[in-house]
Amino acid sequence: MTLTDDLRAAVGERHVLSDPELRAPYETDWSGRFHGEAALVVRPGTTDEVAAVLAACRRAGAPVVPQGGNTGLVGGGVPRGGEVVLSLGRLDDVGVPDLATAQVELGAGATLGALQAAARAAGLDAAMDFGARDSATLGGIVACDSGGVRALRHGTARARVAGLEAVLGDGTVVRRMSGLLKDNAGLNLPALLVGSEGTLGVVTRVRWRLAAPPRRRVAVLVALDSLDEVVGLVGRLRTEVPSLEAVELLLPEGIAFTCEYLGVPSPVRDAAAYVLAEAVGAQDPTEELAAVVPDDALLADDTATRERLWRLRETLTEAIAAAGIPHKFDVGVPIARLAEFLERVPPAVEAAAPGSRTFQFGHLGDGNVHVNVLGPEPGDEAADEAVLRLAAEVGGTISAEHGVGVAKARWLHLIRSDAEIAAMRSIKRALDPDGVLNPGVMLPGTASPAASATTHL
Amino acid sequence: MTLTDDLRAAVGERHVLSDPELRAPYETDWSGRFHGEAALVVRPGTTDEVAAVLAACRRAGAPVVPQGGNTGLVGGGVPRGGEVVLSLGRLDDVGVPDLATAQVELGAGATLGALQAAARAAGLDAAMDFGARDSATLGGIVACDSGGVRALRHGTARARVAGLEAVLGDGTVVRRMSGLLKDNAGLNLPALLVGSEGTLGVVTRVRWRLAAPPRRRVAVLVALDSLDEVVGLVGRLRTEVPSLEAVELLLPEGIAFTCEYLGVPSPVRDAAAYVLAEAVGAQDPTEELAAVVPDDALLADDTATRERLWRLRETLTEAIAAAGIPHKFDVGVPIARLAEFLERVPPAVEAAAPGSRTFQFGHLGDGNVHVNVLGPEPGDEAADEAVLRLAAEVGGTISAEHGVGVAKARWLHLIRSDAEIAAMRSIKRALDPDGVLNPGVMLPGTASPAASATTHL
Ligand SMILES: Cc1cc2nc3c(=O)[nH]c(=O)nc-3n(C[C@H](O)[C@H](O)[C@H](O)COP(=O)(O)OP(=O)(O)OC[C@H]3O[C@@H](n4cnc5c(N)ncnc54)[C@H](O)[C@@H]3O)c2cc1C
Ligand SMILES: Cc1cc2nc3c(=O)[nH]c(=O)nc-3n(C[C@H](O)[C@H](O)[C@H](O)COP(=O)(O)OP(=O)(O)OC[C@H]3O[C@@H](n4cnc5c(N)ncnc54)[C@H](O)[C@@H]3O)c2cc1C
Repeated sequence: MTLTDDLRAAVGERHVLSDPELRAPYETDWSGRFHGEAALVVRPGTTDEVAAVLAACRRAGAPVVPQGGNTGLVGGGVPRGGEVVLSLGRLDDVGVPDLATAQVELGAGATLGALQAAARAAGLDAAMDFGARDSATLGGIVACDSGGVRALRHGTARARVAGLEAVLGDGTVVRRMSGLLKDNAGLNLPALLVGSEGTLGVVTRVRWRLAAPPRRRVAVLVALDSLDEVVGLVGRLRTEVPSLEAVELLLPEGIAFTCEYLGVPSPVRDAAAYVLAEAVGAQDPTEELAAVVPDDALLADDTATRERLWRLRETLTEAIAAAGIPHKFDVGVPIARLAEFLERVPPAVEAAAPGSRTFQFGHLGDGNVHVNVLGPEPGDEAADEAVLRLAAEVGGTISAEHGVGVAKARWLHLIRSDAEIAAMRSIKRALDPDGVLNPGVMLPGTASPAASATTHL
Repeated sequence: MTLTDDLRAAVGERHVLSDPELRAPYETDWSGRFHGEAALVVRPGTTDEVAAVLAACRRAGAPVVPQGGNTGLVGGGVPRGGEVVLSLGRLDDVGVPDLATAQVELGAGATLGALQAAARAAGLDAAMDFGARDSATLGGIVACDSGGVRALRHGTARARVAGLEAVLGDGTVVRRMSGLLKDNAGLNLPALLVGSEGTLGVVTRVRWRLAAPPRRRVAVLVALDSLDEVVGLVGRLRTEVPSLEAVELLLPEGIAFTCEYLGVPSPVRDAAAYVLAEAVGAQDPTEELAAVVPDDALLADDTATRERLWRLRETLTEAIAAAGIPHKFDVGVPIARLAEFLERVPPAVEAAAPGSRTFQFGHLGDGNVHVNVLGPEPGDEAADEAVLRLAAEVGGTISAEHGVGVAKARWLHLIRSDAEIAAMRSIKRALDPDGVLNPGVMLPGTASPAASATTHL
C-alpha cells in the first residue's frame, strides 16, 4: 500500500489533499516568508485518526509537519519541501466551561477566538489575547507556548494548560484531561510538550484554565520623552498597579506608519516612545493607574476609546505585512537592558541590511520586544543575525514567545550550550525515534528521515 | 582510585561521610517510615562539585540519591541500601531579591524558611508555605513540585520557578538563570526537571518568582454539618472571594487528636467538618469572606487569632507523627467527587487494615486530600493499596504534591498508561543513560546499576 492509500484509509479520501490548488493554503505561512511544497495535506477528524496518520507516516518514513491556524511566524508549521502536512483544523470542538474548576476542554484545532467566546458566554475570561485570535489554534498556542498581550498577568500557554492530550512521535497517546488542580505523579509530559513546536508530539485536545471575569477595564496611552522614562514607568506600573494586565510599547515610527496605513491623523503628541497599559480590576483600577502615569496620559475607561487605543497597537503588524514580507523577531531582553537594546537595534540592522526599515514594538512588561525588519529578501539573513546576536549579547533570548521554528534554529547555540542542545536532541530521539515530527524545526540540523515522502506516494 | 578517593578529591575529605553515626541522619526520612543504609554521604559545596560527584559515581556505577531537607514523605530522598547520598545542604546561599523582576536566586540547599525571610526583608512575599518550611529545601521543593497551603492562589513550585540550574544524570549542566520573564527557545528542560524527583538531574540553583506583599490577611474557621456543605462552600469561596489564598479541610477526629496532643480544649462546636480559609487582599478582604461564610464562622483578622487557627491545622501532622509511623498519602480528587471520596476512605481503610486510625485533612481548595493512617507496620501496604485505588477510581491521582517516590511507584499504573510510563522511561534513559540517579524512585522497577556502590569503596 502506498502512503496515500494508507492515509486515505485512515482519514477518508476527501481529507487527503494532493491537488496543488487545495494544498496551497497550507504551504505558505501567514507572513509569506516561509513556503514549501507538501507531499500531501491530511486532515484527521479524531485523535485516533491522528495516531493512524502518524503510524502510516512512520511506516513510510515520511516526515510530518503539524499545522494549526498557520499563523506561527517562524516557519515551523509549513512544509520545507516534501513533508506531509497534518492539519488539526477539524478537531475544533469547544466544550462548555466547567464552573467548579473554571476549565474548558477544546479540540486542538479550535481557535483562540472560539475559546474567548466560550469563556465569555460562561461569565469567565480566556486569560489570553493577541492579534491572530481568529486563526491561531489551541494546538499551535500550546505547541509554541504563546503569550500575547495579557501574559504579564495570566502567564503564557504553559500557565493556562490544565490538561493535554497528544500523540507522541512514537505513537504513545498522552492523556491528562481529568482537570485535577494538582497532579504530580510521574514525569510531567504535558509540561515538556508545551513549547515543543510539534517536534515531540501532536497535540489533539487541550484543557484550558480560565480566569475570573474582568470587571473594570481601563487602558492608558502615555507619551514619554526618553527610553529611560519608559523603563522607569514599566517598573512603577508593575509594582504599584496590582491589577495591571498589559504593558505594550509603541515607537513614533510605528504610530506614524499605522496612521498612514489607516489614513487617520496621529492621535498622540510627538514623543520618544509610547506605552499602552491596561489594568483590569475587581474594583475600578482608574485611580491606581492615574497615580502612576503623567498628567497628559490618555486614560480610556470606555470601550470605544479603549478599542481605538488597542487598534493603534494591533494594526501595526497588519500595516507592516501590507508593505512587504518582514523579517520578524520576538526577542526577550532583561528589563534592566531594555533601553540599551532598543537603542542599539536600528543602527545594527542598518549596518547589516542597509536601507531597510526597522520597527520595534511588543510586550514591554515581559521584556519581549518585537523587531520587524522590512527590506531584506526572505532568504537574506544578515538582519536576523544582527538582531539575534544583540539579544544574546544583552543577556536575552532569541525567542520570547514565537519559538525557534526553522527561522532561528541556526542561532539556538547563542543562548543554549552545546550540552543543553544535545540533551534536547536525546529527548527528541526518545519520544520520536524515527524522527518523523517536524525535522529541521527548533533543533539545528535535525535530519529528515532518509527516505523522502514523495518517493512513496 | 576507589569511589571514596574520587569523591574525597571532588569535595574534600571532611565532606565525604562514611562513619555510620555521621551518616545516620541522612538514612531515615522525616516520617520514620523509610530507611536504608548509604554507602557514603557526600556534601558538595558548589555546582562544579555536584558535577564531579555525579561523574565519579557514573564511573563507579554507583547509584546516587539526591537529598535536600529530607522532609519528603515518599521515601525518594533516603537510600534504599548501598547508594551514595548526595546532600545539597551546603548550597544554601540566599540572594537579595531583584525588585525589577520580583525574583530571587538561591542555592538548592536553602530552606523555604530562608526564602520567606529574604522575601519579607525585601517587602515581597515567597508565595509558598507549608509546615516543613524550616527544613524543606528549594531543591527538594522543585524536585517534588511542592504545593502547600497557598498553591490555590500562587500555584505549585512549577509556577514559581523563574530559572533553574541543574546537573543532569549524563553530566549536562542546564543553566537558565537569566530571569527573563519569557524564554521560549528550545525544549523547556527546567519544566521537565520540576517534579522529576531527582530521577533526571540534581538541582543546584533556583531562581524563584516572588509575589507582591500581602496587605490585609484574614482567616476564617467554619464548622459545617455535612461534607456536601463543605463542597458547596469551597465552590462559593473560589468564585466569590477573588483574594482567596488557602482553603484547608479539618475533620472532627483530627481536631480532637490535635487538641489532646496540645492539651487544650477544642475551640470549635461539634460539626461534620471544618474549613479553614484565608484571604489576602490589597484591600481588606473581610467583607468578601464574611459574605460567603455562615454567621457562626470564626473570623480572625488579627495575627494572634490567625496563628491559633493555623496551629490547629499544622499541628495535626506533628501529633500524628508523635503517635506512631503513619502511612501518608496526598491524593488528588476531582472537586465534584470530594465528598464521596472522603466518605469512602475510612471504611475502605478499615477493611484493608482493621483497627487502624485514619485522619483526613489537606488542601481542600486544590482537591488535595491528605490521608494519614496509623496502625499498619511500615512494610504493610494493604491500606496504601486501598486508598490509592480509591483515588484512581474517582478519577483522581495517587499524588497531588508529594510525588511518587518509592512509596507509590508500584501504583503509578493506576493513573498512567503503560505507554505513558514507557515514554517516561525513555526520557529517563535519554538524560541519565547510566541510570545513576535515584533508581527505584517514581518509575516502577527502574533497575539499580548492575554494580552496587558498596563493592567499589
Ligand atoms: C497578527 C499576529 C499576531 C501574533 N501575536 C502573537 C502574540 O502576541 N504572542 C504570541 O505568542 N504569538 C503571536 N503570534 C504568533 C503565534 O505563535 C501564533 O499565532 C500561534 O501560537 C500559532 O498558532 P497556529 O495554530 O496558527 O499554529 P501554526 O502556525 O499552525 O503552527 C505553529 C507551530 O506549532 C506547531 N503546531 C501547530 N499545531 C500543533 C499541534 N496541534 N500539535 C503540535 N504542534 C502543533 C507547528 O508545527 C508549528 O511548529 C501572532 C501571529 C500573528 C499572525
Ligand atoms: C510537616 C510536613 C509538612 C509538609 N507539607 C507539605 C505541603 O503542604 N505541600 C507539599 O507539597 N509538601 C509538603 N511536605 C513534603 C514536601 O514534599 C517536602 O517538604 C519538600 O518538598 C521536600 O523538600 P526536601 O528538601 O526536604 O526534599 P527531600 O526530602 O530531601 O527530597 C525529596 C525528593 O526530592 C529529591 N531531591 C531533593 N533535593 C534535590 C535536588 N537538589 N535535586 C534533585 N532532586 C532533589 C530527592 O531525591 C527526593 O526524591 C511536607 C512535609 C512535612 C514533613
